[in-house]
Amino acid sequence: MLSRFTGLRAACRVLLLALFLCCALTFGGSLHSSFAQVAGDPSGTKTGAAIDATTANGPIFKDQETVDSVRANVPTIATLADGVGHTRVAVNIVFTLLTGFLVMFMQAGFAMVETGFCRAKNAAHVMMTNLMIYPIGVLGFWICGFAIMFGSVGAVGSLGGTPALIGGEFKIGDVGLWGTRGLFLSGNFYDVGVFTLFLFEVVFMSASVIIPTGAMAERWKFNSFIVYGFFASMILYPIYGHQIWGGGWLSQLGHLYHLGHGAVDFAGSGVVHSIGGWTALAGALVLGPRIGKFTNGKANPMPGHDIPMALLGTFILAFGWFGFNPGSTLGMAGAGGMRAAIIAVNTMLASASGAFAALLIWKAMFKKPDPGMAANGMLAGLVAITAPCAYVTSGFAILIGAIAGGLVCWGVIMIEKNGIDDPVGAFSVHGINGIWGVMAVGLFADGTYGDGLNGVSGNVTGLFYGHGGGAQFMAQMISIVVCGAWAFGISTLFFKVQNALTPGGIRSRREDEIAGLDMPEMGAYAYPEFQLRSEVRESALVD
Amino acid sequence: MLSRFTGLRAACRVLLLALFLCCALTFGGSLHSSFAQVAGDPSGTKTGAAIDATTANGPIFKDQETVDSVRANVPTIATLADGVGHTRVAVNIVFTLLTGFLVMFMQAGFAMVETGFCRAKNAAHVMMTNLMIYPIGVLGFWICGFAIMFGSVGAVGSLGGTPALIGGEFKIGDVGLWGTRGLFLSGNFYDVGVFTLFLFEVVFMSASVIIPTGAMAERWKFNSFIVYGFFASMILYPIYGHQIWGGGWLSQLGHLYHLGHGAVDFAGSGVVHSIGGWTALAGALVLGPRIGKFTNGKANPMPGHDIPMALLGTFILAFGWFGFNPGSTLGMAGAGGMRAAIIAVNTMLASASGAFAALLIWKAMFKKPDPGMAANGMLAGLVAITAPCAYVTSGFAILIGAIAGGLVCWGVIMIEKNGIDDPVGAFSVHGINGIWGVMAVGLFADGTYGDGLNGVSGNVTGLFYGHGGGAQFMAQMISIVVCGAWAFGISTLFFKVQNALTPGGIRSRREDEIAGLDMPEMGAYAYPEFQLRSEVRESALVD
Amino acid sequence: MLSRFTGLRAACRVLLLALFLCCALTFGGSLHSSFAQVAGDPSGTKTGAAIDATTANGPIFKDQETVDSVRANVPTIATLADGVGHTRVAVNIVFTLLTGFLVMFMQAGFAMVETGFCRAKNAAHVMMTNLMIYPIGVLGFWICGFAIMFGSVGAVGSLGGTPALIGGEFKIGDVGLWGTRGLFLSGNFYDVGVFTLFLFEVVFMSASVIIPTGAMAERWKFNSFIVYGFFASMILYPIYGHQIWGGGWLSQLGHLYHLGHGAVDFAGSGVVHSIGGWTALAGALVLGPRIGKFTNGKANPMPGHDIPMALLGTFILAFGWFGFNPGSTLGMAGAGGMRAAIIAVNTMLASASGAFAALLIWKAMFKKPDPGMAANGMLAGLVAITAPCAYVTSGFAILIGAIAGGLVCWGVIMIEKNGIDDPVGAFSVHGINGIWGVMAVGLFADGTYGDGLNGVSGNVTGLFYGHGGGAQFMAQMISIVVCGAWAFGISTLFFKVQNALTPGGIRSRREDEIAGLDMPEMGAYAYPEFQLRSEVRESALVD
Repeated sequence: MLSRFTGLRAACRVLLLALFLCCALTFGGSLHSSFAQVAGDPSGTKTGAAIDATTANGPIFKDQETVDSVRANVPTIATLADGVGHTRVAVNIVFTLLTGFLVMFMQAGFAMVETGFCRAKNAAHVMMTNLMIYPIGVLGFWICGFAIMFGSVGAVGSLGGTPALIGGEFKIGDVGLWGTRGLFLSGNFYDVGVFTLFLFEVVFMSASVIIPTGAMAERWKFNSFIVYGFFASMILYPIYGHQIWGGGWLSQLGHLYHLGHGAVDFAGSGVVHSIGGWTALAGALVLGPRIGKFTNGKANPMPGHDIPMALLGTFILAFGWFGFNPGSTLGMAGAGGMRAAIIAVNTMLASASGAFAALLIWKAMFKKPDPGMAANGMLAGLVAITAPCAYVTSGFAILIGAIAGGLVCWGVIMIEKNGIDDPVGAFSVHGINGIWGVMAVGLFADGTYGDGLNGVSGNVTGLFYGHGGGAQFMAQMISIVVCGAWAFGISTLFFKVQNALTPGGIRSRREDEIAGLDMPEMGAYAYPEFQLRSEVRESALVD
Repeated sequence: MLSRFTGLRAACRVLLLALFLCCALTFGGSLHSSFAQVAGDPSGTKTGAAIDATTANGPIFKDQETVDSVRANVPTIATLADGVGHTRVAVNIVFTLLTGFLVMFMQAGFAMVETGFCRAKNAAHVMMTNLMIYPIGVLGFWICGFAIMFGSVGAVGSLGGTPALIGGEFKIGDVGLWGTRGLFLSGNFYDVGVFTLFLFEVVFMSASVIIPTGAMAERWKFNSFIVYGFFASMILYPIYGHQIWGGGWLSQLGHLYHLGHGAVDFAGSGVVHSIGGWTALAGALVLGPRIGKFTNGKANPMPGHDIPMALLGTFILAFGWFGFNPGSTLGMAGAGGMRAAIIAVNTMLASASGAFAALLIWKAMFKKPDPGMAANGMLAGLVAITAPCAYVTSGFAILIGAIAGGLVCWGVIMIEKNGIDDPVGAFSVHGINGIWGVMAVGLFADGTYGDGLNGVSGNVTGLFYGHGGGAQFMAQMISIVVCGAWAFGISTLFFKVQNALTPGGIRSRREDEIAGLDMPEMGAYAYPEFQLRSEVRESALVD
Repeated sequence: MLSRFTGLRAACRVLLLALFLCCALTFGGSLHSSFAQVAGDPSGTKTGAAIDATTANGPIFKDQETVDSVRANVPTIATLADGVGHTRVAVNIVFTLLTGFLVMFMQAGFAMVETGFCRAKNAAHVMMTNLMIYPIGVLGFWICGFAIMFGSVGAVGSLGGTPALIGGEFKIGDVGLWGTRGLFLSGNFYDVGVFTLFLFEVVFMSASVIIPTGAMAERWKFNSFIVYGFFASMILYPIYGHQIWGGGWLSQLGHLYHLGHGAVDFAGSGVVHSIGGWTALAGALVLGPRIGKFTNGKANPMPGHDIPMALLGTFILAFGWFGFNPGSTLGMAGAGGMRAAIIAVNTMLASASGAFAALLIWKAMFKKPDPGMAANGMLAGLVAITAPCAYVTSGFAILIGAIAGGLVCWGVIMIEKNGIDDPVGAFSVHGINGIWGVMAVGLFADGTYGDGLNGVSGNVTGLFYGHGGGAQFMAQMISIVVCGAWAFGISTLFFKVQNALTPGGIRSRREDEIAGLDMPEMGAYAYPEFQLRSEVRESALVD
């Protein structure tokens, strides 16, 4: 029996086939020529000519005649030079924006590493602190963080001059403490150069203030975390950042007291990672260890619930770091921006030696490698090379990374021995190796880069390359001490005051922590459908 | 007992050690000098000189003598200007390609968000619709989608002129309806400028047509989905897209009827997201809700099976959006391309305020935040800022995002109240906030950008900044109505006809849906080894 | 009762509120103006001028007066040309570095694909081979791999000349065998151009040597894998690579024996993928199949444990491939670098047709599509287009991809029929389609690109476009034979010798393989908390 409907279907199919054949006939010529040689500019050697050099808005239409007439009426050198200058700044903005985007993606890397190394019952909570620190930090940095850190940084030549950023520092005598201009990116700061700098710097802030979410994971109230997020992005991070990158007094140690180029921290081993690491340590201390972590002072293993997730996060971080370090030249054309190539290779080499060293060392100590330590070794190498990446040879990059791989192994063991619970090793990776990275500049800077940095002529040179390396090393050590004192001090104070002011304290309720924070604090389970074998075991640990 | 084999091993080891020592002695000098200062150009200040400015193929060998001789025989200004023009277009292609790649990566973000928010028993099916929409869409856009949308767009100055794209529109009177040239990228379209544009636009198409896979997830026949994919990429998306970006009549409302600059949608709140959102709504309505979703008109929660996966997807989308919005300048040098820096910061600020607002609002309403709503809030902010990102100040970017965060909360609740089942909130995120974004241009455009857009001189200005803002607002509202009518109308028609023509309809078989679509439709389980606790619960819901 | 503490809290809150109000009053003006039109350069049309064109270090401060004075004292053409040349090289380094970073990210894609397609009990082990091959390979390439492959490659014009890379080949007669300079990147190699090339090439090496980790997964001793990693990155990969990309004899077949342009392999279908695929096959043969894979010569399915993970990996690889292929122009400005746009589109089209063809073919053969085969089809298309991407039209790109999708289906079936166990289809994807890609250059190269390649004038032309296409095809076929003989021969030898020298052989212990390699070899479970339903089933298979 052929139903009416089946008949309709058959008719429609015939129609569709007919339509298809019509199209095929019509389009056949085009389809054929998609396989043929043709008349555009497929090799790209004819695209872009004099007419594109100087016009502000590009040509509306460009036939050969127009192109020739432009060539006949050649621009003056001055006009052409304007075009060249504009193009050069364009290259620098392209590089700075795109590397900034890579740094932003590191947030996903942090989220994967931290969540993978935590337990399944808290996975949604850990993910959410990692997700929300980004919006919170961005808003805080927009409000005043950027102004405090860069409000008086001075002209950024590679980005076209950024005149809005000149002047406006709050000083006591010669000692600059913080910037005061650029709140809410308003007024003269509505400028392509300034916004480029803002974009690149806001993601650095975010990479710093996210670090404590790892050390304080699985026992931190979400509300308290939100308050921390604003504090860190508005005050904690930018104040120290101003001292090194914003023209503040640590960067002026060279200019004022002849300590080399003052404190030098190319991409933020100290500014970003040490600050985050010290804050993580303070937070872990104020919160105390997770329930069941220590029995009679002996640490119980609490393995991460998803190792592939954590290792994916490591890859994402290593990928994003190619924005972090090379992008910190703030451009490619002029001003030594091409050094970014050296920086990229050094970054890669240190990550390699860090991972490989941690693998071998852990294996030598405990017979087996450990995926977590190999990953942390790679991250440690990356943290350590962040300050010196622009100033050292490839050989020393490998050495710096390898030592970092050793330091992170030592750090993880030492921290646990001292009864501190840092679930993902945040202090060992970012704190200890941040210090090591800043120190490495003072040791290995090879004197081939950095002329004019912080207003001091000559290249940055460390102890191993003589000629005033001692003074540079001194500046580095001073900045390490100031960094630790500021970050650990102010964040301990902050967490203690917040703990006192918050009803019930900043630590999650005991019953929530035992059950897992996902449902009580986040209102959703991370994995509502997967059967966990941990549920029995965990509650046993607690009792 | 020393076996023959053990002896062989010992011999080989001695040999290897000897080989290693030989190498060490030979390479020792090199290794040492990898730590030493040397004679290349490590700072990059000497790399690139006059000789690189004008030669088409680069130098074969460049010693100091050659460099000096080129300097002595300086190029004419005309030749040099050619070199500058070529370089400027090169910068623009670099930026457009790389941001296009970021947009392509958003496919992975969609896949993670949609799969994470669905149930484990359909995870392979949802992933596969997200994976396959990309190849299907790419093929459809290559066949005719690109020609319909951009076949008559006119010269793209930043990419070198693209003369192949001039002319060829199908018009009724003054009203351009679609382009007709560039089928299969053949003939004159075999051109570096045209291919650059194709690459950037094909990934936008893909980001639009992927949206319904979320709203229609867990109950859509894979075969029916494939047919939809070709329809959407060849007809549905490009026809509307032509009206706004291809030179069609909505973009000419200003030129022809003095409504500001005509409909303005910088990176596609309407063109990409609203179109996708309306289609998603139509599809969800035609399919009907999932089995068990509503009991007596009351919605049952069907929580996503993997929250970390969904939040990773959110990060990937937020990362890719930095290609989406800033890349839509189609270049950096000339023609206001540097505005990309403003756009990038606005994009980030709106995503931040969207996520934060949704978090607070949901918490205020239901006592607890929700990871899904925070993620959707971030995406809502991104969708909403997509149209206005190039025209508003940072303050308004935050406001637009915050309102988007509120709208998405309202949308999710409202959709569910109306008995519509949209598993991932696709219409609330992309449909509602796409509309809001297009409207926001008419409200907040600040008159600092857009001179000459759509053939209208002067910058784009919204209601809040006076001077004809009303006319611009009117153009925006017209485009919103046309967009909804077209996308919802044509896709409802399409799905209904397809449903009638497909034996058994476009909805999966009842028994497959209950069992999960993975094995019956995809031939593989997403997680063949993980024990699911949901299996019992789900079947209970159904009975 | 109001406790002392509650009082303190109230006091603090009042204080905080007061502080907030003070700030609000102070900052109010700024906040307001963040919504207002202002005086920076928000459109970016005024940023960058003549003063930026030529100064090496950028301006210190740039007021209008300075800008005007620079314009008055215009640079000479020679000076300006220097600035242009520097800028052009800067564009090229930006493009090469950023695309190189994308290629590095492919490591994460490989890791996700391989781990997702393996079983849960080995997931940490498979992830770790994928994580560690990167550091191991990077160190090996730094030591001598780069020197062997590129130590005599000659000037790279787009990167500024790289004089350090000229000369130094080890030759027998006319036949160049390997490079000898650049060990440890020391001496003159400390140069921005050389380091840029190193960065781009080291990630290609890594993408090649990672391939066997898939075919040899789930039964390979981790220690043996480490030794392999150094061998592959230091010897196996660079020696063949030198023949094609380093100036070695296969690339000279045209110059010396008039076989077209010699062997042409634009981005490495042969150099990277075939080499990896052949090595994978050799490794799989030496290891033998996994326990339980074959019963009486019939293959038992061993489905991947996490399909969403594997498909995420596919997306990441497809994303990274936009670095792989377009980046292989080593620049955008000059020397036909803009061809990158054509290459990017071809790459995308081939991935699309590969995935779609594999989906349809598998469905035609087995009634259902398979997520694994769709993913492998996409990867096969990408592998196959890698060599010809720069030389073919968009139509042929689609054809090449579609055939690749068919080949991978055939390969997977054929390999299993022959009793070989390749858990992720590495040989079918990379080996077979690597060969197909190299062959496709000789068939479809359309004669619009490649002038001067390998010292032969005229564009690269294949059989289908006549004029000496036969000679080019012959060169391609020779390279295919040499590639297979070298890679399969040397790696079989290597694995056999290593197997004999390693106590217990290079295959994991039987009891470890049955239990899963994670705990015995890695010291950690991938998923310590998820309940696996596989545990019973797996042990049943073994008995």
